[in-house]
Amino acid sequence: MLRQGSGSDLPQVGEFAPFPVARRVNSSHSVTMDDAMENGMGSYQERPRTFPSMRSKSHYPLIFRMLLGINARVLLVLLLLIFGAVFYVGASTSPIVIFVFSICIISFFFSVYLTKWVLAKDEGPPEMVQISEAIRDGAEGFFRTQYGTISKMAMVLALVILGIYLFRSTTPQQESSGLSRSTSAYITVAAFLLGALCSGIAGYIGMWVSVRANVRVSSAARRSAREALQIAVRAGGLSAIVVVGMAVIGVAVLYATFYVFLEVDSRGSMKVTDLPLLLVGYGFGASFVALFAQLGGGIFTKAADVGADLVGKVEQGIPEDDPRNPAVIADLVGDNVGDCAARGADLFESIAAEIINPSGFILFPLVVHSFDLVVSSIGILSIRGTRDPGLIVPIEDPMAILQKGYSVTIVLAVLTFGVSTRWLLYTEQAPSAWLNFALCGLVGIMTAYAFVWITKYYTDYKHEPVRVLALSSATGHGTNIIAGVSLGLESTALPVLVISIAIISAFWLGHTSGLVDETGSPTGGLFGTAVATMGMLSTAAYVLTMDMFGPIADNAGGIVEMSLQPESVREITDVLDAVGNTTKATTKGFAIGSAALASFLLFSAYMDEVASFAHVSFKEVDIAIPEVFIGGLLGSMLIFVFSAWACSAVGRTAQEVVNEVRRQFVERPGIMEYQEKPDYGRCVAIVASASLREMIKPGALATISPVVIGFFFRLLGHYTGQPLLGAKVVASMLMFATVSGILMALFLNTAGGAWDNAKKYIETGALGGKGSDCHKAAVTGDTVGDPFKDTAGPSLHVLIKMLATITLVMAPVFL
Amino acid sequence: MLRQGSGSDLPQVGEFAPFPVARRVNSSHSVTMDDAMENGMGSYQERPRTFPSMRSKSHYPLIFRMLLGINARVLLVLLLLIFGAVFYVGASTSPIVIFVFSICIISFFFSVYLTKWVLAKDEGPPEMVQISEAIRDGAEGFFRTQYGTISKMAMVLALVILGIYLFRSTTPQQESSGLSRSTSAYITVAAFLLGALCSGIAGYIGMWVSVRANVRVSSAARRSAREALQIAVRAGGLSAIVVVGMAVIGVAVLYATFYVFLEVDSRGSMKVTDLPLLLVGYGFGASFVALFAQLGGGIFTKAADVGADLVGKVEQGIPEDDPRNPAVIADLVGDNVGDCAARGADLFESIAAEIINPSGFILFPLVVHSFDLVVSSIGILSIRGTRDPGLIVPIEDPMAILQKGYSVTIVLAVLTFGVSTRWLLYTEQAPSAWLNFALCGLVGIMTAYAFVWITKYYTDYKHEPVRVLALSSATGHGTNIIAGVSLGLESTALPVLVISIAIISAFWLGHTSGLVDETGSPTGGLFGTAVATMGMLSTAAYVLTMDMFGPIADNAGGIVEMSLQPESVREITDVLDAVGNTTKATTKGFAIGSAALASFLLFSAYMDEVASFAHVSFKEVDIAIPEVFIGGLLGSMLIFVFSAWACSAVGRTAQEVVNEVRRQFVERPGIMEYQEKPDYGRCVAIVASASLREMIKPGALATISPVVIGFFFRLLGHYTGQPLLGAKVVASMLMFATVSGILMALFLNTAGGAWDNAKKYIETGALGGKGSDCHKAAVTGDTVGDPFKDTAGPSLHVLIKMLATITLVMAPVFL
Repeated sequence: MLRQGSGSDLPQVGEFAPFPVARRVNSSHSVTMDDAMENGMGSYQERPRTFPSMRSKSHYPLIFRMLLGINARVLLVLLLLIFGAVFYVGASTSPIVIFVFSICIISFFFSVYLTKWVLAKDEGPPEMVQISEAIRDGAEGFFRTQYGTISKMAMVLALVILGIYLFRSTTPQQESSGLSRSTSAYITVAAFLLGALCSGIAGYIGMWVSVRANVRVSSAARRSAREALQIAVRAGGLSAIVVVGMAVIGVAVLYATFYVFLEVDSRGSMKVTDLPLLLVGYGFGASFVALFAQLGGGIFTKAADVGADLVGKVEQGIPEDDPRNPAVIADLVGDNVGDCAARGADLFESIAAEIINPSGFILFPLVVHSFDLVVSSIGILSIRGTRDPGLIVPIEDPMAILQKGYSVTIVLAVLTFGVSTRWLLYTEQAPSAWLNFALCGLVGIMTAYAFVWITKYYTDYKHEPVRVLALSSATGHGTNIIAGVSLGLESTALPVLVISIAIISAFWLGHTSGLVDETGSPTGGLFGTAVATMGMLSTAAYVLTMDMFGPIADNAGGIVEMSLQPESVREITDVLDAVGNTTKATTKGFAIGSAALASFLLFSAYMDEVASFAHVSFKEVDIAIPEVFIGGLLGSMLIFVFSAWACSAVGRTAQEVVNEVRRQFVERPGIMEYQEKPDYGRCVAIVASASLREMIKPGALATISPVVIGFFFRLLGHYTGQPLLGAKVVASMLMFATVSGILMALFLNTAGGAWDNAKKYIETGALGGKGSDCHKAAVTGDTVGDPFKDTAGPSLHVLIKMLATITLVMAPVFL
Repeated sequence: MLRQGSGSDLPQVGEFAPFPVARRVNSSHSVTMDDAMENGMGSYQERPRTFPSMRSKSHYPLIFRMLLGINARVLLVLLLLIFGAVFYVGASTSPIVIFVFSICIISFFFSVYLTKWVLAKDEGPPEMVQISEAIRDGAEGFFRTQYGTISKMAMVLALVILGIYLFRSTTPQQESSGLSRSTSAYITVAAFLLGALCSGIAGYIGMWVSVRANVRVSSAARRSAREALQIAVRAGGLSAIVVVGMAVIGVAVLYATFYVFLEVDSRGSMKVTDLPLLLVGYGFGASFVALFAQLGGGIFTKAADVGADLVGKVEQGIPEDDPRNPAVIADLVGDNVGDCAARGADLFESIAAEIINPSGFILFPLVVHSFDLVVSSIGILSIRGTRDPGLIVPIEDPMAILQKGYSVTIVLAVLTFGVSTRWLLYTEQAPSAWLNFALCGLVGIMTAYAFVWITKYYTDYKHEPVRVLALSSATGHGTNIIAGVSLGLESTALPVLVISIAIISAFWLGHTSGLVDETGSPTGGLFGTAVATMGMLSTAAYVLTMDMFGPIADNAGGIVEMSLQPESVREITDVLDAVGNTTKATTKGFAIGSAALASFLLFSAYMDEVASFAHVSFKEVDIAIPEVFIGGLLGSMLIFVFSAWACSAVGRTAQEVVNEVRRQFVERPGIMEYQEKPDYGRCVAIVASASLREMIKPGALATISPVVIGFFFRLLGHYTGQPLLGAKVVASMLMFATVSGILMALFLNTAGGAWDNAKKYIETGALGGKGSDCHKAAVTGDTVGDPFKDTAGPSLHVLIKMLATITLVMAPVFL
C-alpha cells in the first residue's frame, strides 16, 4: 500500500490511537514506558526482554529541574556568585580569561532564553503529545542505561590511568617545576573524568532538547512552515551553544585552576606552554564517551531504521513512519539518541581536542570559540519566523534560509577572527605575524566551506553524481550498489586535495610568519596549522545547529505521520526533513575535515610528549623500519575492522528487528487493518539491549588495541635492543589509522548520503517514481547506506580523535 | 524460466545452432568473426559499432606456428644452438646460471610436451567446436586490440624514460664503474621493453592455452570426469610453467648479458650487488603491461558477466550460459581475457619483481624458481587421469585431488629450498646463516599456506562466515550487502596479522644470521624478508596452475551448457567450475600476500636508489613532516579512487550490455523460443570497445600520479629549502598506498568471493534454494562482488607492485 493510495484507507482520528497506552503519572513529564511494554507483552512473555530499568525514575535530572524552576531572584544571586568566582580566578590569571568566562556565561543565559522560548510553544493535540512522550521515554531510558554502562567503563579506565601515572617517570619539565608524580596522576585523572562528564552532559542536552522540540515543530507545522523551521533551528541552536560553551568553559576553568594552583610562569615553576599536555586527559575523557555514545546511538538508530524499512516499506508496502509499523517508535527514538546525543558529544570532543593543541597558545582558541558563540547566536537569531497562525503558506526553500544564516555567521566569523589574531597574536618581534595567522584562519574557514560544498556536490540530487547513481538503479539492485560504492570511493579525492592544500598553506603561512625559536629558526608552522583548524571550527556552533536541526525535523515528520495529520502538514515536515538530510550530510564533511586537521596536531603533541618522557629527541617516525611499517599496517587494519564491526552490528540488530516485526504482523493480523495495536515497546527494548551489547566490541577494539600494540612492541624493542620501538610503532599506527580513517569515513558518509538522496530523487517521480523496480533498487542502496553514514562513518570521526588522545595519555605504557 | 523446467523446452540439437555462423577460412584455425557480426547486424546497422580490426589476420602468431610445426630434426638443431649459447654465456658468469638456463629450457620442452598432449585431445562434436571458435575469435581479437593499445602506451613511456635517463645525473657507483649516462639509459629502456614484451607474451600464452583447452575439457567431460580434470590441470600447468620459466630466463639472460658486457666484479668495474637496480626496468615493464592487461581484461569479463546475469538470470529467469542470452559468448570470452591472460601477466610480474630484490643476491632467487619449475611439474604430473572412455563415473572431490598435488609440491619445495640455501647461502664467516635463511623460506611457505587457508575460511561455504552471510540474505538485499561489506572489511585482520608476524620473524631470522657489514653490524634482516618472499613464491607455478584451472573449467561448463549437452555432462563441469572458483579465490590471497612482501622489499630498494643518486644517506621517511604526511594521504587516496574507477567502469559497461540484451530480446522475440539467433558478436564488440576505453582512466591515474606528485613536491621543496622533499613524499605515498592497497584488495577479494559462494550455498537448496527471495538477494550480492573480486581487487595487486617499480625507475624525476 503506497502513500498516495493510503488516503482512503485512513480511519477517522480517534477510532484508533496509534501509539502505546502510556499512563500519565503526573501533570509534568514523568511517564513510564514499562507499563506500556508490559501491557503489550501478550504472547511474548515466554521470551522476556527487559528494557533496562527506567521504572519510577524521574526523567528530569536535578540540574534541569533546577534550571527550569529558578525564579528571577535566585537567578540574580547565582549570577552574582558566578561572576564573583570568575573575577576572582580571572584576576589571578589574565583578563582574557575573564572575557571568555563572561561570554560563556552570557551564552548560557542566552540558551536558557532559547529553552524557555522553545518550551513555551504548544505541544499540539493529545495524540501528538502521546507519541512524543513515547519517543521521549524510549530515548531517555536508553540514554540512561547507555551512559550508565559508559560511566562504569570510564571509571575503570580512570583507575587504569591512575595506576599507570603513579608508576611512570616524570618529565624534566615536571621535575623542574616541582610537579610530583602523584599530582600529575591526579590532574590527569581528574581532567579525564571532567572531560567524560562534560561530554556526557553535551550528549544529554542534545537528546533532551530534541525530544522536546520535535512535537513542538510538528504542532507548529499545522500553522506555519516558517514557524516550524524557526522552532527547529532555535532548539538545535540552544543545544549547540550549550555544547560549545561547555567545551570552552571546561578548558578555561581547568586552565585557570592549574594556572593559579601550580603557580605557572612564576620563577622555578612550569611554563604556560606546558599546560596543554596536562589538559589532554580532558580531551581523552571527552572522546572516550563520545566514541561509545556515537557507536551505541548509531547502532540503535540505524538498526531500528533498517529493520522498520525492510519489513514496512519493502515487504508490506506501507509508508515510512506508518503507525502500523511496530518498529516506528524505535526508529524515531533512534533519531534522538543516535543523531542528536552522539553528535553533541562528537563536536564537544572536536572543540576540546583542538583547544588543547600542542602550541601552548591556549587562550587564543578560547577567544576564537567565544566569538564563535557570539556570531553563531546572531546567525541563529537571523532566522525569523512570520507569525500568521491558522494560515499555512507555501514555504520558501528552507535550505536557502539556513544558508543565509550560515553566510551571516561566516562573514562575522572572518571579522572576529581577524580581531582575535590582532588582539592576541600581535608581537613586537614579528609585527606582521598576526596577519599571517589571520590568513591561516581564513584558510580554515575556506576549507570548511569547501568541505561543505564537496559533500553537497556528491550527495545532493541536483548534481551529476547522484543522478548517475539513480540512473544505475534502473538496471537493478546490483548496479545501484556498485555505482554507490564507486561514488563513495571516488568522493575521497577532492576532500583529500583540499585538506592537503590547507595543511601545506597554513603550515607555510605560519612558518613564514616571522616567529623564531631561541636558535633563530622559524617555528610558527605547526601553530599555523592549528590556527587553520581553529578557523575551520570558528563557526562550529552554527554548523552544529544545522546538524541538530536534521533529527528534530525528522522526528517532527514522524510525529505528523503517526498522528495522521492532513497531507498539507506532512508536506511541510517532508520539506524540512529533506533539508535536514542535506545539512546532516554536510556537517559530516565538516566534522571529518576538522578531525583530520586536529589529528595532525595531536600527533605532533604525541611526539613532543614522548620526547619529554624519554629525555631524547623524538622528531621522526621512520616507516622504513619493519616494525614501524607493521605498526602502520595494523593501524589501517584497525580502521577496517572497526568499520566492519560497526556495520555488522547494525545488520545483526536490524535482523532481530525484522524478525520481531514480521512476527507481530503474523501473530496480530489486526495491525494492518488498524484494529490492533502494535507492540512498539518491544521493538525499542530489542534495539536498546542489542545496541548496548554491540557497541562494546568495536569500542573495546579501538580503546585496547593501541595500548596492547604499543606495549607489545615496547617489549619487543627491549629484547631486540631497539629503544623507543613501542612509541615509534604507535606513532606510525596512529598516522596510518588517521589517514585510513579519514578516507574510510569520507567513503562511508558520502556513499550513504548519495544512496539516500538517489532514492529521494526517484521518489520525486524520476525514473518511474515510487514503487517502480528502479525505486526498489534505490531503497536497497539506501538501506546499505544507513549504517555507513550514521553508524560507522561518524564513529570513525570520533575514533580518529580518540586514538590521538589515547596515545597521548597512554604514552607512558609504550616507553 | 528456470533450469529445472527448461528440459522440455529444449529443441533437438541441430534444429537451432546456438552460435554465430562462423565461416571457416581454411582448415586450420583462421576464423573471422566480423562476418558473423555483419551477418547478424540486421536492424542495428544504423548505429554501427565495429569490433576492432581482426579481419583476415591469422590467429596464430608466427612463433606458435613455428613451435607447433617444428619436426624432430629442426628441434635437435635448435636445442644444440640454445645449449651452445647457454654454455658460452654461462661459462663467462657462473655455473649456477648454466643450471638455471638448463632447467628453464627443459621446462620449456616439458611445456611443449604438455601442449602437444592437450592439443591431441579431441574437440568434441561440431557444435562444441563452433562455440569454442566463437570464444577464441572474441578472445584473440580483444587480446590483439588491447595489447596493441598497451604496446603503444609502452612505447611512449619508453621514450619518456629514455629522455629522463639521458638528462639525469649518474650515481657514484656508476661513475666508479665507468657506466656512462647513455648506457644506463639504454639499459633501463631495453629492460623495460623486454619486461613489457615478456609480460605480454605471458598473458598471451595464458589466453592461447585457455581458449584451446576449454573445448577439450568439455568434450572429455562427456567421457570421464577425471580426464576432464586432468586436461584442465595440464593446460593450466603448461601456461604456468611457461610464465614462470620466462620470468626466470628473462632475468637470467639480462643478468648474464650485463655481467659479461659490463665486466662486473672485475677491477674498477661495478659490483655484482649493483646489478639488480639495472634490472628494475624489467620489473616496471612487466608491471605496466600487467596493470593494463588486468584492468582491461577485468572490466571485460565482469561487465559481460554482470550484464548477462542481470538480464538473463534476474529478469528473464534463464540459466547461466544459456544459448539464448546474447551476452553469453561475451561472458565466456571474458573468462579467457580477464582471468587467464591477466593473471599470467600478474604472476609474471610478481616473480620478476621479487627476483630483482635489493639485496643483490640475484642468483639465489633464480635457483629457487628453477626448483619451483621442477617441483611444480611433478605436482602437475601427480594428477593422473583414469582412461575409461564412454563411462562417466561419479567424480571424487576434485578439490581433494588438486590439494593432494599441492601437498606434493609443498613438501618438495621445502626440501629443495633447504638444498638451495645450503648450496648458495653457506658462508665461512657465518656457518649457520644458511639455516636461518632456510627457516625464512619456511616462514614464507607457511605464510602462503596461511593465506590460502584464511581465504578459504572466509569464502568457502563450509565455514561460519559465508553461512552467516547467506542467512543475512533472508532479510533482504540490503542486509546481504551490509553483511558482505562487513565480512570483507573484517577479513583483513588475520592476513595482516600473518604478514606482520612473517615480516618481523623473517627480518629477525636474517638479522641474527651472523651476516655483518664492514663495520660489524648485522645486515641480513632485509635479505631475510626477501628470502621469505621467495619461499612464499616457491610453489608459484603450481598455484598459478590451480588458478588457470578456474577459467578453463568455467569456459568448459559454458560450452557444455551452450551446446545443450545432457544433464550428466553438465554436472561434471559444474563440479569442476565450483572447484575453480575456490582455487581462484585462494590464489588471490596468495597474490596479495606476495605483493605485500615484495613491495616492502622494493620500498627498501627505492630508498637505496634515492640515496645513491642524491649522494646522501636516505634511511628515514619522517611522516611528522606535513608534506610527507600529505604524501601518505594522497597515496591512500590513490587506492580509493583507483578502486572506484575500476568498479564504476564495470558498472557502466554492464549497463551498456544490459541495454543491448534487453533490446535484442524486444526486437527479436524469437530468441526466447529458440527461433531466432541472438547477435553474440555485437555484445562482444560493445564490451571490447568499452573495456578498452575504460581501462585508460584508472591505468593512467596509477601511472601518472606518482610522477606528478613527486615532481610537484620536488619543486615545492626546492622553493621552500627542503632538500629531497619530492623523494620523501613519494616514499610516504608509496608506503601508504601499499598498506591501503593490501587492505582494500583483501576487502574486495574476500567480500566478492564470499558473496559468490553464499549464492552457491543457497543454490544447493539451503534457505529456500534457487528462485527464493533469499536467492535473489544473494544474486545481488554476487553481482556487486563481481567487479570487486575480478576487476578492482586483482588490479590492486598489480597496482601495488607497479607503484613500487615506477617510483624506482622514475626516481630521477623526484630528485
